[in-house]
Order: sequence, then structure tokens, then C-alpha cells
Amino acid sequence: MSQKPISRFPVPTLDELPDDIRGKLLEVQEKAGFVPNVFLTLAHRPDEFRAFVAYHDALMLRESGLSKGEKEMIIVATSGANRCLYCVVAHGAILRIYEKAPLLADQIAVNHHKADISPRQRAMLDFAMKVCLDSASIGEADFKALAGHGFSEEDIWDIGAITALFGLSNRMANLTSMRPNDEFYLMGRVPREPKPAKA
Amino acid sequence: MSQKPISRFPVPTLDELPDDIRGKLLEVQEKAGFVPNVFLTLAHRPDEFRAFVAYHDALMLRESGLSKGEKEMIIVATSGANRCLYCVVAHGAILRIYEKAPLLADQIAVNHHKADISPRQRAMLDFAMKVCLDSASIGEADFKALAGHGFSEEDIWDIGAITALFGLSNRMANLTSMRPNDEFYLMGRVPREPKPAKA
Amino acid sequence: MSQKPISRFPVPTLDELPDDIRGKLLEVQEKAGFVPNVFLTLAHRPDEFRAFVAYHDALMLRESGLSKGEKEMIIVATSGANRCLYCVVAHGAILRIYEKAPLLADQIAVNHHKADISPRQRAMLDFAMKVCLDSASIGEADFKALAGHGFSEEDIWDIGAITALFGLSNRMANLTSMRPNDEFYLMGRVPREPKPAKA
Amino acid sequence: MSQKPISRFPVPTLDELPDDIRGKLLEVQEKAGFVPNVFLTLAHRPDEFRAFVAYHDALMLRESGLSKGEKEMIIVATSGANRCLYCVVAHGAILRIYEKAPLLADQIAVNHHKADISPRQRAMLDFAMKVCLDSASIGEADFKALAGHGFSEEDIWDIGAITALFGLSNRMANLTSMRPNDEFYLMGRVPREPKPAKA
Amino acid sequence: MSQKPISRFPVPTLDELPDDIRGKLLEVQEKAGFVPNVFLTLAHRPDEFRAFVAYHDALMLRESGLSKGEKEMIIVATSGANRCLYCVVAHGAILRIYEKAPLLADQIAVNHHKADISPRQRAMLDFAMKVCLDSASIGEADFKALAGHGFSEEDIWDIGAITALFGLSNRMANLTSMRPNDEFYLMGRVPREPKPAKA
Amino acid sequence: MSQKPISRFPVPTLDELPDDIRGKLLEVQEKAGFVPNVFLTLAHRPDEFRAFVAYHDALMLRESGLSKGEKEMIIVATSGANRCLYCVVAHGAILRIYEKAPLLADQIAVNHHKADISPRQRAMLDFAMKVCLDSASIGEADFKALAGHGFSEEDIWDIGAITALFGLSNRMANLTSMRPNDEFYLMGRVPREPKPAKA
Repeated sequence: MSQKPISRFPVPTLDELPDDIRGKLLEVQEKAGFVPNVFLTLAHRPDEFRAFVAYHDALMLRESGLSKGEKEMIIVATSGANRCLYCVVAHGAILRIYEKAPLLADQIAVNHHKADISPRQRAMLDFAMKVCLDSASIGEADFKALAGHGFSEEDIWDIGAITALFGLSNRMANLTSMRPNDEFYLMGRVPREPKPAKA
Repeated sequence: MSQKPISRFPVPTLDELPDDIRGKLLEVQEKAGFVPNVFLTLAHRPDEFRAFVAYHDALMLRESGLSKGEKEMIIVATSGANRCLYCVVAHGAILRIYEKAPLLADQIAVNHHKADISPRQRAMLDFAMKVCLDSASIGEADFKALAGHGFSEEDIWDIGAITALFGLSNRMANLTSMRPNDEFYLMGRVPREPKPAKA
Repeated sequence: MSQKPISRFPVPTLDELPDDIRGKLLEVQEKAGFVPNVFLTLAHRPDEFRAFVAYHDALMLRESGLSKGEKEMIIVATSGANRCLYCVVAHGAILRIYEKAPLLADQIAVNHHKADISPRQRAMLDFAMKVCLDSASIGEADFKALAGHGFSEEDIWDIGAITALFGLSNRMANLTSMRPNDEFYLMGRVPREPKPAKA
Repeated sequence: MSQKPISRFPVPTLDELPDDIRGKLLEVQEKAGFVPNVFLTLAHRPDEFRAFVAYHDALMLRESGLSKGEKEMIIVATSGANRCLYCVVAHGAILRIYEKAPLLADQIAVNHHKADISPRQRAMLDFAMKVCLDSASIGEADFKALAGHGFSEEDIWDIGAITALFGLSNRMANLTSMRPNDEFYLMGRVPREPKPAKA
Repeated sequence: MSQKPISRFPVPTLDELPDDIRGKLLEVQEKAGFVPNVFLTLAHRPDEFRAFVAYHDALMLRESGLSKGEKEMIIVATSGANRCLYCVVAHGAILRIYEKAPLLADQIAVNHHKADISPRQRAMLDFAMKVCLDSASIGEADFKALAGHGFSEEDIWDIGAITALFGLSNRMANLTSMRPNDEFYLMGRVPREPKPAKA
Repeated sequence: MSQKPISRFPVPTLDELPDDIRGKLLEVQEKAGFVPNVFLTLAHRPDEFRAFVAYHDALMLRESGLSKGEKEMIIVATSGANRCLYCVVAHGAILRIYEKAPLLADQIAVNHHKADISPRQRAMLDFAMKVCLDSASIGEADFKALAGHGFSEEDIWDIGAITALFGLSNRMANLTSMRPNDEFYLMGRVPREPKPAKA
């Protein structure tokens, strides 16, 4: 495990945290086997932490025309465009696991035009990139193109809102030099066996 | 009052809203004299609404080395860079009121280098623009420059986080074609009483 | 009235000016109630002043398929793209007055895609933005698109030439830190009463 | 001589022109041996023609701390950045003649960092490029750097204003597909006498 | 093994290849356990293949002030900037192996400012990014900065030339939709054991 | 002939060169009347020299659906975009000679949209510019557009590969401040016989 700092801002210890946040962290640790550094980094500001988690859950846990894997594709593609190391690595891992596709995250992070995805997913990522890089130019033609691929109005809101939320997250990660946990880099790359890395 | 749609997505009526959100809207209406369209537009998704308001309050109501006016300067400058009409107009109004400076918002929205602000505020906005437009390049030299103007580490987090949150907001407003309330355009431009310009 | 310098270059007093230029300034003052700072700033160089005013009048007073308000829309949109405070504020005022539309200038300065304008006017501003930001890529497809909205060849010259002239003006204003008169910020925002401004 | 159109807009014949403009054209023809196409193209709009020529003469014939050759360097460098064929070719010819330097124009049009010019001239062109491409960011540091190379405040106005005027000219040339006269391409390349390249 | 095409251009079979190229491929296969797709894709044009391999070997096998790992860092960083999937994935694998650093390639591909590298290596990659994205602006200040980190003139040539060669390679890979071999994605990520993936 | 350095790196004398390279240089000198500086500059690294020449010959001497002049058009246009003085000047000369078109190189270097070329050649250069500036976005639509102008798949490879190779060359020239031989500037401009400008 690397000893590098995970944030250039102070990182609270578990003891210092409010009960609800400590509870959340222990719950995640139980499930993932480790505490993703985004939780520790953002916990420096408990109220912002709670708001971020609430926003995240509202969008990511919501029933949607987008699959869970497709939501992660949006995060990985736009985090690549924003050059955010934490989100590319951490959400790349989640994407690999959701899609059971060990190659997909690297493909999408570098250039979604060359990824093993459907034309519908390519249209989804084209739009996410526009929201990420040039939202002022969004127009009805974009909505029409997405509708042509079967996306509902609510799906389009989801694409835009996930891009917007992780644009926030990308900026916070770049501001804090948030370091991805070492565990993420390998997750989902070796399909079959339970996961050798950190039994 | 204009009859143009305030969002290209469905806008709930007050009756349709959950109690807590309706309460929030009535409270804002009481205070401002009208309901800012951002509340109605985002209320289409109650959970995201609650998270956005919580994030907003965590950052904007927090004690900070930045004054309330300075926080609004950050929003206006970066919303200008993201070409977000809603935020430039609505937060421009708030900035004029907080700073009792009828010219300031237009100056900052167009080009903060030409605005009537202090060198410290200019450094603050230079950094906010970097977080907004090129967060991947943030480095220790930026932190040092801000420290030289008396900004604490927590202040720098505030600058970055406000920029990041309103980057989210800018993208949602561009996605939804969120329309600023007509009232905002004039607020804070005629200081005291409805008096003609300079008789 | 603010005491801030209106130019970082020397500004002549009325006495120092050649008769024709002093006459022009007094004439404008008579009509507007004040002397716009662009006249004082550029009068530092009388010959350039005369050429600029002649160019301005040749384009702006000319009969055209573009209305006077539409010409101002072009100036406001492209001055926003060039981040020129003087022209956004001063021509924003004129635009509000010509169009009797108190909201229009702020909309167009920030993002013309979200402004209360016709599709024809949107096409006009799309082209103006191309002349402003990427004139090397202008091609026959652009002319065809404008013709499709009813613009004649002469109208297209007008759109291009107004953009080009105010691109000059934007650069001079940014060079000289030309300060908009305080009066402009409020002009045309309070419709109704004839406008007591400066009797 | 090529028979290609010199403008995509109508070009007046000498007969059709107002006397003063015809006179100007004949005068230039007398001196140069041909009528540069910019005169014919812009003469489509006599008032704009007169204003352009007046502006040009005010800046280019003015006594200045910049030599005539240095003024042309500014035009060639910024016209290269704006990708304006007419101005690169026509003013490239003038630059070669003024400086008696057959290689200089091509060097400056492509990349002034690699041109045979002095450090002072390099600083001049660095600033002109900033006025051309990003005038909103001009600040006191730029003025200080130029002063360090011996440029007066008036010289700096000249650099900025020449860049601004030819930015207008570049956009008009790109709009009209203004074609450089064939003569310009070779002018000033064969210094003294008609000598063959490398016998 | 995926059945996706490895190039949108024809890919020769081993039989069809000239002897020297088939020999080269078999030699690489012997060493790596598989034939990297770049060899098969470029072998469509034998003469270009030979020239590319010769250029590659001249730079990459050469004794240099740069370590073999540092050369791969340059390739990964600039291929990320050019959004070239093949080179990020394939050279990312080689970088992990050379440096025995399973996290390094992902860090550098996304944002070298956040990577676990030395200040000297950061300066090296800053310069490589400039050669990649804005070579026209290279100047003596860049050479001085690199010398300050101990790079010799020959080292600087190496940094520039490796960036230039892989800029060629990135464009060919994007042109041909060159697909990285599945094997590369996992190589060097699980240090110890010989490599479980696909014996 | 100018005495300026032709490279900021050491330039070997003919004596110091390996036999094959000296032979190559003498051969070129025989043919062109002088040794183009690219040969001397790159000969500083003999192995890279040989690989570059081999790559160049593989692409440029190859039978192709592109004429020799068209290949040079690609080099001139993309070298202009990369702001590479050496290649614009040297290959501009070759282009003039191949096409017997004294104006063409300057047109294409500045703005190929305004050049005297066919629609097919314009499509070819549009694609070359995309390979040069944004290869990650190449897609099937580009291939279809080129096929519509009669380009075969092999022709498209040629366009892309020539752009890629000279992108390498442009970066090496910008790195080394490679100076074009004075001879190139005039070559091909005075078609037939040594005639003075305009007798």
C-alpha cells in the first residue's frame, strides 16, 4: 500500500468524524474492502460531504433508461476529458465490474470513438462530452439526435446531470490532488477468480 | 412578466411538490418577492434539488475568509466563462446587492481584469478561472500565489469548491435552458429607491 | 459619477481638441446627455478618431436589410466573445433602447443561443461569431445558410463588416482599458417612463 | 495574369467609381504599376473604402517609434495568425521591399519565433499576437515588458492599433475571398537586378 | 481473445509477408508471447513498416541520459494528449514493466502532474507535452529549464524526437483504428507471478 | 547566402559523415544544386537520418492515387498548421515546381480554403488538417466523404501517413530551429526564364 498523501488538504481520522459520516465510511469499507479516498478527502468538510453523497445517490441509484454501466461510462469519458486521475481510475474500476468488461474503461478514458460500445452508447458519450466541454452550445439538434437513439427526456437529463456532477468532482479531485486507492487500478481486470489482489 | 418557458423540461406546480420543497420555495418567495426559476427547474427532480440546495448552503452560508460578495464574484466570473445565462443574471443581481456596487457584476461577467476589484480579488478570480477552465494544471505555484494574497488553505478550498459547484449549476442551466426571472436583471442597479438614474 | 480613469492612455480635454472633434463630442453630448468615453479615449489620436467615426457611420447609418437593433445585436454578441467590457455595456444599452427590450442585451452578451430572438437573428449571430472567431473557415455553405433566412448578399457584407469593425474597437478598448460610462449600465432597463435620465 | 475573381462580391469598374476613389486608384496604379485588389474589392462600398483608407493612412503614415518595416511585420505576423491570404501576400511584399529582406515575410508569416529579427522586434510581435488572439488578457505586465525594450506608450498604441485595423482587414478579406494580385507574390524577392536563382 | 478487427485497413497474414518482416514478427512473438497489433497493422505497407521499426529502434534502443522507463513515460503522456488508444495501452504496459510500477502508466496517461515521478521527470514531460501540442513555441527558455534539471542537449533531442515519432504513430493508430492486443491491458499490473492472464 | 546557424544542435561536416549519408548528400546536391538543410540537421543522428529518409521515400516515391504535387500540398498545408518554417518554405518550393504553379504554395500554407485547387484537393486537405490537428476524431464519415471524391482506401492511408510523417518532421524542425536554405524561397516562383518582376 502506498504511503503517499491522499489529499493536499487535511484528512480526518475516523475518530474525528461525525457519527453519520463515520458510519457511511464503515459501511463502504465493509462492502468494498477499503475506504475509497474520495470519502476521506471530502470528509474534511462534513456538510459538503453529505451533499455530495446525496447528489451522487440521487443520480446514480435512480431508476433510469441508462444502465448502471452506462452511467459509469459517462463518468469515465468526461473525467478523461477533464484529466481527473481519481475519477478515471476509481470509476474505471466500477465500470469494468458492472460491465464485466476488463478493457472498456481504458478505451473510454482515452478515446470513446475507439471503444467497444454500441452506436447508442457512442451518441450518449458524444453528448456527455458536449455537456462537459461546451455546454453553451447545446441545442435542440442534440436532443433530437439522442431521441433518435431511443433516449427519453429523462435519460437526457441523467446524461447531463451525471456529467455535471462529476465535473464538480473532477475539479475537487484536481484541487485536492486526490489520490486513487491502489486497489482500484486492478479491480475488474482479472475477471474470473475472486480477485487476487488483497484477500 | 414574460410568458416564455423557464425550462425545456417539465416544471412542477407548487401543489405537485413534496412538502419540504414547497416549504423551501415559499420561504424564498417570502424573502425575495418571487421564486427564482432555478428552484422550480431543479424541483423536477426532488432528490437532486435537495442535494443541490444542501451543497449550496454548505458552501455559501459557511463562515469563510471570503466575504459573501467575493463568493458571488466567483460565481459570476466562472458562469461568464461557461456562458451560463441564468447564473450570470441571477448571481449578478445578488452580487450587486451584497457589494452595493451596481456596475460590478457586468464588469466581472465580461472580463474580470477590467473590474473595480482589489488585487487580492483579482488573484482569487484568476484562480477560479483556472479551476473552471483547466483544473488539471493546478499546481503548488497557484497555492503559493494565493497565500501571498492572504488566502488560507480553507479559503482556497472555498474558491475551488464554489467554482466546481457552479460549474455543475452552469451545465444544468445550459442543459435545461433555464430562464432567469425577469426581476433579476434590474435588481441592485438602482440603489436606494426607484429613482431615475441621476437627476 | 466614478473617478476611475477612463483610459490608460492620455485623454484630451475638450479645449485641446481640434474643432471638428470638439464639435462632434458636443453634438453627441447634446443628444445623449453625456460624452461616451469611446469618443474621449480615441480622440487621443484625432486622425484615427475621424476614421473610426467615418467607418462607424458608413456601416451603422447605412440603409440595410438589417434593422438598427439587429446591427447592435451583432456588436453585443461579438464583443461578448472578445470579452470587451466597453462595447458590451455601451452597445448593450443602445440595443435595449432600439429594441425596447430590457433583457435582450444581457442574454446576447452571455449566450445568444438562449436569447429571445428569431431563428433568422440566431443565424445572423451564428455567422457573426464565425467571422469574429474563425473567419478563415467562412465558406459558401455559410452564405447559403444565410440566404435561406432571407439575407441578401449586401446584408451578409453588413454582418461581416460590423463584426470586423467592432473587432477593431474591442481590441482598442482592451488595449486602452476603456471604461464604459456609468450611465450606460442602466439605460434602457426601466422601460416605461420616457426616461428622466439626464434632463 | 490570372482570370480568377478577385472578390465574391461585385467589383466596380473604374467608370462606376466616385471621382475621389477613381483618383486614388489611378494614383496607386501609377506608383505600384497595378491596382492592388483590396482597393477594388473595398470600393464596392465607397464610404467604407474612404474610412478604411483614412484609418490606414492615419496609422501607417504617422511618425512613430516603429519603422515602416516594423509596422509591416506586425501586419504579416497577425495576418498569418488570422489566416488571411490577401494580407500575408500583399503586406509580405511590402515588408520585403521596406526591409530589403527577401526572406523575412515568409519567416514572420509562418512563425515569428524563427525569424531574422531583433529581440525588440520579437517582443513587439509577441504583443501584437496577444492583441490579435487574446486581447482580453492584456495587462500591465505586457506594457512593462515592452517598455523594457524601449517602446514608448505611443509605440504600444501603434502596435495595438495596427493589429486591430488589420484584424478588421483580415476578416473583410476572408469574408470576400479577396484575391491577392499575382504581382505581389514575387515582389521584393529578387533584390537588385533580375538574376536567375542558381545558375 | 477478442475477434474485433485490429485495423480498418487490410491486415496481411504471416504468409503474405516479406521474409524480413515475418522474421521480425516471429522474433517479437517469441519474446512477448504474442504479436503486437502495431506490427500487423503497419505491415500492410512493408517499406513504411521497415522505416518505422528502424526509427523506433534508433531512438528507443540508443544509449541516452533518459532511462528506458523515462522514454516510455514520454510516449504514454503524449499519446494520452493525442488520445491514441493503442499507444496508451501498449506503451503503458511496457512502462509498468520497465519501472516495475503498476500504477504509473495510468497516472501519466491521465495527468502527469499527479503522477509518482520526480521533478526532473515532470520537467521532461512538460517539455514533451509542448513538443506534442505547441512545438512552434519552443524557445531557449525551455532548453534552459531542462538543463537546470540535468538534461544534456542530446537528452533534449531524445525527448523531442520520441515525442515526434510517437506523434506519427498516434496519428497512424487513430487513422487505422489500430486495436491494442488484449494482453497489454493487464501486463505489469500484477507484479510478482509470471503473468496469470493468458499463458 | 546567409551565415545564420542552420540548427541549434551540432551539424556534422561532410567529412564526419558515414559514407552512405555523405553519398546521399552529394547525390542530392548534384540534383538540387545545394544540400537542403534538413539533411545536414538530421545527419547529426545517422540512424534517425536513415530511418527518416527511408520513411520519406516509402511514402513520397510510392505509386499512388495522389499526384506528386498533391502529396506536397498535404505537406505544405499541415506544416502551415504546425507553424513549421522549414517545411513550409522547402516543400512550398517543391510544390511550385511540381505543379508549375508559382502562387499555389503561399495560398495553401496560409489558408487552403482560398487556394486555386479542385474540390477533390480541398477535401484531401480538409482531411489532412483533421489528421494533423484532431486525429482522435477521425471516423467513418471522413472515409465516406473522401471516397465520394474518388479517393481509394490506399489513397486515404497516403494522406494520413504523409501528414503523420511531416508532423514528425515539423516537430523536429521546430525543436532544432532548422533553417530553410535561402535558395528555397525563390524556387519555382519565376517560371520560365529569369525575368524581372513586371517589365
